[in-house]
Amino acid sequence: MEILIKDILTVLPDCVKTCSIHIRDDRIISISDTADGISADKTILGTGKLLMPGLVNAHTHAAMSIFRNSADDLLFNEWLFDKIMPMEDKLTGEDCYWGVMLAVMEMLRTGTTSFIDMYYFTDESARAILESGIRSTFSRGIAGDVAVVEEKLKNAIDEINRLNGHDTLRFMLAPHAPYTCDEGFQREVALEAKRLGIPINTHLSESLAEIDTIKNQYGCSPIELADKTGLLTETTVAAHCVHLSDSDIDLLAERGVNVVTNPVSNLKLANGVAPVPKMLAAGINVALGTDGAASNNTLNMFHDLSLLAIVHKGINHDALAIDARTGFNIATKNGARAMGYSDLGEIKAGNIADLVILNLNTPNMQPLNDPVAALAYSANGSEIETVIVSGKILMETKEFKTIDEDRVYFEINKICDRVGTK
Amino acid sequence: MEILIKDILTVLPDCVKTCSIHIRDDRIISISDTADGISADKTILGTGKLLMPGLVNAHTHAAMSIFRNSADDLLFNEWLFDKIMPMEDKLTGEDCYWGVMLAVMEMLRTGTTSFIDMYYFTDESARAILESGIRSTFSRGIAGDVAVVEEKLKNAIDEINRLNGHDTLRFMLAPHAPYTCDEGFQREVALEAKRLGIPINTHLSESLAEIDTIKNQYGCSPIELADKTGLLTETTVAAHCVHLSDSDIDLLAERGVNVVTNPVSNLKLANGVAPVPKMLAAGINVALGTDGAASNNTLNMFHDLSLLAIVHKGINHDALAIDARTGFNIATKNGARAMGYSDLGEIKAGNIADLVILNLNTPNMQPLNDPVAALAYSANGSEIETVIVSGKILMETKEFKTIDEDRVYFEINKICDRVGTK
Repeated sequence: MEILIKDILTVLPDCVKTCSIHIRDDRIISISDTADGISADKTILGTGKLLMPGLVNAHTHAAMSIFRNSADDLLFNEWLFDKIMPMEDKLTGEDCYWGVMLAVMEMLRTGTTSFIDMYYFTDESARAILESGIRSTFSRGIAGDVAVVEEKLKNAIDEINRLNGHDTLRFMLAPHAPYTCDEGFQREVALEAKRLGIPINTHLSESLAEIDTIKNQYGCSPIELADKTGLLTETTVAAHCVHLSDSDIDLLAERGVNVVTNPVSNLKLANGVAPVPKMLAAGINVALGTDGAASNNTLNMFHDLSLLAIVHKGINHDALAIDARTGFNIATKNGARAMGYSDLGEIKAGNIADLVILNLNTPNMQPLNDPVAALAYSANGSEIETVIVSGKILMETKEFKTIDEDRVYFEINKICDRVGTK
Repeated sequence: MEILIKDILTVLPDCVKTCSIHIRDDRIISISDTADGISADKTILGTGKLLMPGLVNAHTHAAMSIFRNSADDLLFNEWLFDKIMPMEDKLTGEDCYWGVMLAVMEMLRTGTTSFIDMYYFTDESARAILESGIRSTFSRGIAGDVAVVEEKLKNAIDEINRLNGHDTLRFMLAPHAPYTCDEGFQREVALEAKRLGIPINTHLSESLAEIDTIKNQYGCSPIELADKTGLLTETTVAAHCVHLSDSDIDLLAERGVNVVTNPVSNLKLANGVAPVPKMLAAGINVALGTDGAASNNTLNMFHDLSLLAIVHKGINHDALAIDARTGFNIATKNGARAMGYSDLGEIKAGNIADLVILNLNTPNMQPLNDPVAALAYSANGSEIETVIVSGKILMETKEFKTIDEDRVYFEINKICDRVGTK
């Protein structure tokens, strides 16, 4: 299949200009000033539109979209133990299939073409990911003490071996967090991940309570503990990293860990603001994530991008803290790098064709004085019209090509009635 | 003209339930469980929709939408003196007419039905407001020292007298800010406002630089200075109020001042976070505003509402800081009160019919586990389908009824080319 996107204003790695993009199979094969002489199976006219790389949601729990707005304005322990966990106990694999499908719809609708997930029910989640066509790196969350690690690792690795082999679906091993995985558990997962060459996905230093717990138990920070157990490597993705000492930041930088900042979730759950400017200055690859819909409560990456680009200015009294282009790169190419891709997240010849097309004729995108600033500060995600993942059109002028939208709403509401989310 | 909105899930002051709303002329005349026996000139079916009071944008500079994304990621002085002011010098009244029209389009599209404005070119701004049909309280910004106050006041009051007399357009007197209006200037404006019964609109305590300037010049805080000059009254609207001592908060509360918080602008311009929870605890009527598109860079109140509802949780490490309903009330009825209306901002029989209808069949609004939380945390403004102001339909299924959308984009881009915003 060949697609030609003709005469479209395009966010390139170093500038924004009008060009024509030729896609063959899953790749961008050329970017040219003119479409003359290019033929394709399908041509999309770019007038009045903007083309950008798809956003990478580098940390979420997709199936939790079932719990959207079901547990807000609560203290953390009430939220988790009294509300979320009792509902999670009632979830089936089939529920998760529909929850992931709803999440994928929201992500595609708002310009996200790939995501890193951590949750349960790997088979059904993988089915939703593959049927929808979105790109994902999925990880089953595992936790406990060293006594259970062998069994949990075996199950997770069996799933990966069974489900591997798809271009758009990869896997990670996910020791949940320092406060749910003891030292021995972490160490065994790290060893096995290294042995098998599987990347790690984990939560680190999210709340002050976590810092206190780990300090009391191990006499060090969660980052130092994770380093001691071998979890911090160049293929590790660490979500949150809100509360960090300067030496924690140095350690993350030295080990080459990918950090995913979740600014909306961190504010909403009262955890604070991660030191992103300091992490960038230390050379850490910082990506952006929404976290799950139970703590955000949307998977709209434009919402997190705009917050990322303004919150560090306000908190640090520094109007230059994170500019629009830096924020945009964090939400695209840094996320692709965190997922382990070197050929994703930027519009370049040879790269994977994960692309989104926005309508510019909306009041909030006019006048278009600076397209990248418009994406970081003015867009709300509703401008997205067409979404291409791996060279396939998954949404065209807002119509889903691979998902039955009404069926998803119907099934989700049945699940909510049964699980008791309302 | 009578409108019946039939069987629609409705955000009432104390609950959310399905009802039928009957509108005659500019008022809601009944809210009932059934539409039986009600006839109207126009009936809107509410299935799959949500009805809420229109959002009140209590602080903006509408015409500055011309400068959207034209001056970002700059230090404040560069932003204002090197970029914004030279462009403003080139603006004509006709430019402002189109700038206000673009802003009104963006506000209607995202559910805002009324706004408080401070800018220049009152005649042309008023023309755009009246032609579009949106509700506004407009104020011409005035500034300077006591030597020029008489002339500036005369011009402002002449305009008000000439343009007064419309249901949807009111006026205020707007001494710009403590750092642009000296003590004598403030005092004369306060006296004249009291004599004529015109409310005051002003900026107060926005930046740390302002606090320093006023402290050095007058030995007190901007709030204390404004109180000394008589600016702080029950009809005064004070925007920003980011940097406040506890005694400043007490003073604002005692005087009954309406405070407008602008969370996005305050973060973006590196000013910080206003102490909204403390102001609410002191009994201050806090409303919500976007500020202008040159410092936000969108007039989408859902963007500010979600930030309002999460930023105080994160900054104060208090997950209960401002809950969804409190945020929603701040964005609706508190704004109406700041505008001087006692019959606006809530869906009640007898109130003015400024209403918006949202589509609930969108991925981010499903499942609708809690409608008010969905509005505060999950909506992005694109769910708005139909907007009614003063009983008139201004937008229906996203089509503007009073504004030629394409013409506005055309004129705005001509202005941007001339003024040099790109």
